[in-house]
Amino acid sequence: MAIDHKDEDPRELVASLCKDFYKLGWVTGTGGGVSVKKGDSIFLAPSGVQKERIKTDEVFIVDFPTGAFRFEPEGLKCTECYPLFMSAFRLRGAGAVIHSHSQNAFMATLMYPGKEFVVTHMEMIKGLRNAVDQRAYRYDEKLVIPIIENTCFEKDLTESLTRAMSDYPAACAVLVRRHGLYVWGDTWQKAKTHAECLDYLFETACKMKAAGFDPTAPE
Amino acid sequence: MAIDHKDEDPRELVASLCKDFYKLGWVTGTGGGVSVKKGDSIFLAPSGVQKERIKTDEVFIVDFPTGAFRFEPEGLKCTECYPLFMSAFRLRGAGAVIHSHSQNAFMATLMYPGKEFVVTHMEMIKGLRNAVDQRAYRYDEKLVIPIIENTCFEKDLTESLTRAMSDYPAACAVLVRRHGLYVWGDTWQKAKTHAECLDYLFETACKMKAAGFDPTAPE
Amino acid sequence: MAIDHKDEDPRELVASLCKDFYKLGWVTGTGGGVSVKKGDSIFLAPSGVQKERIKTDEVFIVDFPTGAFRFEPEGLKCTECYPLFMSAFRLRGAGAVIHSHSQNAFMATLMYPGKEFVVTHMEMIKGLRNAVDQRAYRYDEKLVIPIIENTCFEKDLTESLTRAMSDYPAACAVLVRRHGLYVWGDTWQKAKTHAECLDYLFETACKMKAAGFDPTAPE
Amino acid sequence: MAIDHKDEDPRELVASLCKDFYKLGWVTGTGGGVSVKKGDSIFLAPSGVQKERIKTDEVFIVDFPTGAFRFEPEGLKCTECYPLFMSAFRLRGAGAVIHSHSQNAFMATLMYPGKEFVVTHMEMIKGLRNAVDQRAYRYDEKLVIPIIENTCFEKDLTESLTRAMSDYPAACAVLVRRHGLYVWGDTWQKAKTHAECLDYLFETACKMKAAGFDPTAPE
Repeated sequence: MAIDHKDEDPRELVASLCKDFYKLGWVTGTGGGVSVKKGDSIFLAPSGVQKERIKTDEVFIVDFPTGAFRFEPEGLKCTECYPLFMSAFRLRGAGAVIHSHSQNAFMATLMYPGKEFVVTHMEMIKGLRNAVDQRAYRYDEKLVIPIIENTCFEKDLTESLTRAMSDYPAACAVLVRRHGLYVWGDTWQKAKTHAECLDYLFETACKMKAAGFDPTAPE
Repeated sequence: MAIDHKDEDPRELVASLCKDFYKLGWVTGTGGGVSVKKGDSIFLAPSGVQKERIKTDEVFIVDFPTGAFRFEPEGLKCTECYPLFMSAFRLRGAGAVIHSHSQNAFMATLMYPGKEFVVTHMEMIKGLRNAVDQRAYRYDEKLVIPIIENTCFEKDLTESLTRAMSDYPAACAVLVRRHGLYVWGDTWQKAKTHAECLDYLFETACKMKAAGFDPTAPE
Repeated sequence: MAIDHKDEDPRELVASLCKDFYKLGWVTGTGGGVSVKKGDSIFLAPSGVQKERIKTDEVFIVDFPTGAFRFEPEGLKCTECYPLFMSAFRLRGAGAVIHSHSQNAFMATLMYPGKEFVVTHMEMIKGLRNAVDQRAYRYDEKLVIPIIENTCFEKDLTESLTRAMSDYPAACAVLVRRHGLYVWGDTWQKAKTHAECLDYLFETACKMKAAGFDPTAPE
Repeated sequence: MAIDHKDEDPRELVASLCKDFYKLGWVTGTGGGVSVKKGDSIFLAPSGVQKERIKTDEVFIVDFPTGAFRFEPEGLKCTECYPLFMSAFRLRGAGAVIHSHSQNAFMATLMYPGKEFVVTHMEMIKGLRNAVDQRAYRYDEKLVIPIIENTCFEKDLTESLTRAMSDYPAACAVLVRRHGLYVWGDTWQKAKTHAECLDYLFETACKMKAAGFDPTAPE
C-alpha cells in the first residue's frame, strides 16, 4: 500500500519525522517522541532535546530482541518513553511508535472524562486500522481509544498502558489523561497516518462538543 | 487571467499541490486528493500515501476519453475518489479537481444540517465562479453549495454527487456531510482558488454562527 | 530605524511579501494584495493569481506622478485595488500598502458593528504610528481604525476610503466591513509592522469579547 | 542533557531563533525579542526590525560584566528590553532570555486577573525547572508564574520584574499583563523549552477555563 523507500536511513527518518511533528505542535518543549523499527534495530529520538533540530548521529539504536543499546550518542539521555515504546513493538508488532503531546489529545481526555474516547460517523475514522479484524474501520462503526490516568513518572505508565493494550486489542493507540497519546502502526507510514487521523478526530470531537453535537452518535 | 506555465510537468504540479494542501490540513492522514487534466491525460495522486511526500513517479496517469490507465506506479493503489474526480472532468469540463478533508468543511456540514451551505455578503464569495452565468459571484448574491450525505464506501458517493452536480449547475463544489469537499475549476489555479475561498467561507460561517451572526443574511 | 536594504529588487520584495502573507492567510484565494513604492515607481502584485507563486516578471510597474503603466506583464490584469492603493500613496505619502483578507479583520468588523474599531491597554498598540503626532501610540491610548461599508465592486470603495483617510488623519489603516483591511506605512517594513500589529489586535479583541472582556476600556 | 553545539555562532543562533519564534507568533510586528549569552558576551536582536529577516551583522553584542557595547550595528537601535534581559542574566545566571508577545501569554493574563498564573496536573509542567530545588517540576505540583502590571514604557518594567524575580525565586518566567512573557533558562535550549512549555500551558489553561475546567486543581 504505502511506499517502502527501502533504502531510507532510519536515523534520517526519525529526525525528519520529529521536525514535521514539531511543526504540528506534537513534540514542542522537548516533549513527545518518535521511534522506528528496521530489521532487528529500534531507532529512538533522544530525550530532552529540541525535537526539530535533531541530527542523525543523535539517534539511539537498540537491539530489538535483547533491548541492549547498539548506539548511545555521547552526552544524551534515552527517552523515558523507552519501555512504553517497547511495549508496542513487542505486544503489537509495531513498525513505529509515536508519542504526541498534541493539545488536541490533551483536551480530548478532559472532554471525555471516562475511560474511553469514542467517535462515529466521521470520515477520518476510515484512516485507522482495527488490529483484531485486520482491516480499516468503517465510517459507521464506533472507534474506541482507551484513556489511562497519568502518573508522575513516565515509566510508571508501562503497566496501565500494557493493560490497555490487552483490554483493547483492536485499538492502535492509548490516550494518557492530561498528557498525550501513544500511537503505533505496522510501518512508520501507518503510525503517522493513525496519528494524523486521531489528531483530527480529537480536535473535531472537541469542536463538536463545544458546538452542542454528540460525536459518539450518528445524529 | 491566471498564468498558464505551459511547460509545467503535471506530475510535479500534483506533488507540489499535495504538499501545499497537507500544510493547510486538507489531506492529512492520507485523506483527500488532487487530480489535474492536461490535454487528454488525467494525473492523479495515489491512495493511502503520505500526501506531503509524493514523488513524481508515484502519480497515476489516465487516458481521458477512455479512462484507461496510461501509467500505474508499481505497488500503489489508485484513489477511490477516481469515479468522483471523473464526474467533474466529464460533466463539468473541469481542468482540476480537489478533494479536501478540511475540518472547516467537516464542521460546516454540521452547522448547516440541511441540504445546502449558504452564505452572502462576504467578500470572498467573489473568488467563486458561477458556472451557469459564466461569471464571478457578486458580493451581495447568495452562494449555495449542495451538501450530500456520506456513505461507507467512497465510490457509493458517485450517484448522489453527480445528481448534486446536475441539481446545482452553478456550483463549483459539493460538500459531503461529516466528510469533506469536492471542488473543481477550469484550470488548477481556478480549482485551488475555489478551494481556498470556500475553506475561508466555511471557517468564517462557523465562527459567525458561534458568535451569533447569521451568515445567510446581510445583517 | 528599520534596515533599508537599498539594493533590494522591489519586484522580488513584492513576490516575497505575497508568499509570506499567503502563509498568514491574508491573501488566499487570490484575494488581497501588496504594492511597494521605490523612487517614482509603484510595484503591484497582479490580480487573480496564486499570490504565493508570483514571479518577479509578473509584477506591474506604474509611474507614480502620472499613474501610467511602465510595465504590464503579458496576459495579466492589474489589481482592482489599484485606485485604493494610489490613494494611500498620494494622500498619505505611503511607501507601501497592504490589502489583507485576514479572517481576523473580517471578524473584527462584525464584532464592532459601528464605524470604528477601538482598542486600548494592549502592548501591540505601540507598534502602530500616529500619523498626526508623528509618533508611536502609547499603551494607554485608544487606537481607532475606521470601518467603511463594503461595495460590490472594489473600485467603488475609493470614495469612502479616501473620506475615511481624511476623517481619521492619525490612522494608518481602514477596515472594510465583511471584507478586510487596507493598511500602509512610510516603508514596506512599517506597513508590514502595522499589518501584523493590527492583525494581532483584531484577533485578540475578538477573543476578549468572546470571553467577556471589553477591549475598548482598561479593565 | 541538551546538546551544546559549542561552535555555533551566537549571532546565527539569535537570527535563527527569531525566525522560528516569528512563525510561532511570538515576535510579530517587530515585538518581542531574543538574547543569548556566550562566555562574557551577550548577543541581542535589534529593536524595531522584521524579526524573521534579521541578518547576523544586525545583532548587538554587549560585554557582560560591564554592560558596554562591543558591537552596535549601524543605523539600528538596541531593544528597550535590554535592562529586563540583563536582570535575568545578572540575577538568575540565565544563558538566554526570550521575550514573547504570544497571544496565549496575553490571554492568560486576562483569564488570571490576580497576581499569579497557576496550573497543575498537566504533563507539560514537567518541562519547566524549579530554580530553587534545582529540578524539574513534578506533574502533580502547582506551577506558579508571577504576573506584573504593564507600564507605558518597557524600561519602567525593570523594577517590578526584578521584584517578581526575587519574590518567586523558583519561577523561570514573569508574565506582563496585556503584554507578554519574559522567560529564561541556563542555556538557550532550556530557555526555548521553558518558553514552549509555558506557551502550551497558557493556551490549554485558557481552553480549559473556556470549557468549564479549573486548571489550578486536579479535577
